[in-house]
Amino acid sequence: MTRVAVLGAGSWGTTLANLLAEKGEQVRIWAFEGEVVEAINQRHENPLFLPGVRLAPGLTACADAREAIAEASVIVSAAPSHAVRRVIERIRGNVKAGTLVVSATKGIETETLAFMSAIIAECLPETRVAALSGPSFALEVCQGQPTLVVAAARTDAIAEDAQRVFATSRFRVYSHDDVVGVELAGALKNVIAIAAGILDGLGMGHNPRAALLTRGLAEITRLGVALGASPLTFAGLAGMGDLILTATGDLSRNRGLGVALAQGQSLEQYRAAHRSVAEGANTSKAGAALGARMGVELPIIEKVGDVLFNGKPARDGLAELMARELKSEQWR
Amino acid sequence: MTRVAVLGAGSWGTTLANLLAEKGEQVRIWAFEGEVVEAINQRHENPLFLPGVRLAPGLTACADAREAIAEASVIVSAAPSHAVRRVIERIRGNVKAGTLVVSATKGIETETLAFMSAIIAECLPETRVAALSGPSFALEVCQGQPTLVVAAARTDAIAEDAQRVFATSRFRVYSHDDVVGVELAGALKNVIAIAAGILDGLGMGHNPRAALLTRGLAEITRLGVALGASPLTFAGLAGMGDLILTATGDLSRNRGLGVALAQGQSLEQYRAAHRSVAEGANTSKAGAALGARMGVELPIIEKVGDVLFNGKPARDGLAELMARELKSEQWR
Repeated sequence: MTRVAVLGAGSWGTTLANLLAEKGEQVRIWAFEGEVVEAINQRHENPLFLPGVRLAPGLTACADAREAIAEASVIVSAAPSHAVRRVIERIRGNVKAGTLVVSATKGIETETLAFMSAIIAECLPETRVAALSGPSFALEVCQGQPTLVVAAARTDAIAEDAQRVFATSRFRVYSHDDVVGVELAGALKNVIAIAAGILDGLGMGHNPRAALLTRGLAEITRLGVALGASPLTFAGLAGMGDLILTATGDLSRNRGLGVALAQGQSLEQYRAAHRSVAEGANTSKAGAALGARMGVELPIIEKVGDVLFNGKPARDGLAELMARELKSEQWR
Repeated sequence: MTRVAVLGAGSWGTTLANLLAEKGEQVRIWAFEGEVVEAINQRHENPLFLPGVRLAPGLTACADAREAIAEASVIVSAAPSHAVRRVIERIRGNVKAGTLVVSATKGIETETLAFMSAIIAECLPETRVAALSGPSFALEVCQGQPTLVVAAARTDAIAEDAQRVFATSRFRVYSHDDVVGVELAGALKNVIAIAAGILDGLGMGHNPRAALLTRGLAEITRLGVALGASPLTFAGLAGMGDLILTATGDLSRNRGLGVALAQGQSLEQYRAAHRSVAEGANTSKAGAALGARMGVELPIIEKVGDVLFNGKPARDGLAELMARELKSEQWR
């Protein structure tokens, strides 16, 4: 039995904690909200972020991240991207060297443009860090739908450790060695999903959506290659797979944000009405900044940023996008 | 003004003929069914294959393929894949050297494993052949939804000619030089779409569907690379784009066939109830044969064939598939 701490009790953190608890591991989850701690411990549910799912009775929650990680040999980092550094800094000094830390958050830190695994490696340099990513709606994992994801790390040994921790017969984990590609794809697909939601919200059809997703993955791939990632990563589960899921599934928060934008809502209005974070909004800024830094054009990501933050009407942003002359069918 | 002949008045042939007629070209379409010829000429509609769409008044239909191509400088080949050779052989001897022949059919000839453009080049060796492909539901093209496709040919000049013939502000055509990749992707995505329909029909979720599409494109890519295609083609509009469209859109006949199979219908029952051809059924045989010839494993395509032709229940086929140990996340 492995002692596991999960930091963050959003829908994905709660799902991974529950999956590990059902596997028989001893799992403690840290929740930011006191009511979530209480609900998990007393009623085995997380009504705020995973309503309707009955959690494993062995899963316990606590309100103190340091308490959650005591004696844990595996830590799962699952806070929203803007909170990851704060949470990891909180446990700094209490983490044993060699601990496996698995990042399950898809995002880029807005201020530093750092990926989540880089923040963890910076704050906890003596740990072994992996990134878990791929097409995985939390609710479907809880329902036992077959789900395929990847665990990426800088060494095969670390990736395979992460694989062993999470793998079940219905949650299949493939090891991967391209951490940058896996994390970039997982973060930026949320921005393309917002664009797809805008198309859907404007009543556009499947033809333009398929074109948008293809061109969107092409621009993510271009940026990834500039950052040293392998182009093949973007054709895999963490790239194409997760983009299809997020941009076509009704359970996606990012796609939902795009639909709301198309219907005339502002980002502030959407945020006021939704408790869960649509990571793609912040990621659009980070993605555009990374593109500028690397000299890579990202027309779709930039247009989404204009709609989110610069007051551009969704319809105009999309019209410009579809009218733009594409240079070539290929990503390079 | 260009004189164009379109051979085949299914939904896609009719749509392309209509698009060209609306562009101002002089277009004659050959229809197999007498009632379609009459309906197009007298009522400007194709009630059998494109009901509800008002066709350009200038579009004329005829019952004789040789008459349709008289004086045409562009021929669009749009018959179902099993009929293309017969139709092209019919016009052999009546086609001027240098005529541009654009194949708009996605499929592989079952007996010879030839792609459509290869059949045309074989029967009409003095013509200039291109293949048109990409994510394009016919009805959405008729509705003016922005649509992005590729025109592939062995020389840039031919591809660019095809591009010029079809391109409008809402139907954007990119030239492409990988004919094998474009035609293979367009044909085999129909088989993966049948598999996706089976998943949907079995009530499976978005997570397994996203994984299936990713692994499906990976196996098409493996086969394509073995046949000399570029892996990048499969990440483009003719590959990923068309796969997303066909496997997630409600307008797809191939996905619809998969749903019917999951609900216990046989291929014969489905065919008896539908006039339009679901190309993916025949293509699953051709794809499996190509894989065997090239020594490339195609587990998803082979399972679809087992369900279609070997009496394997759809649920068992899928269960085997999801349980199969994947060797690696990458396509090679």
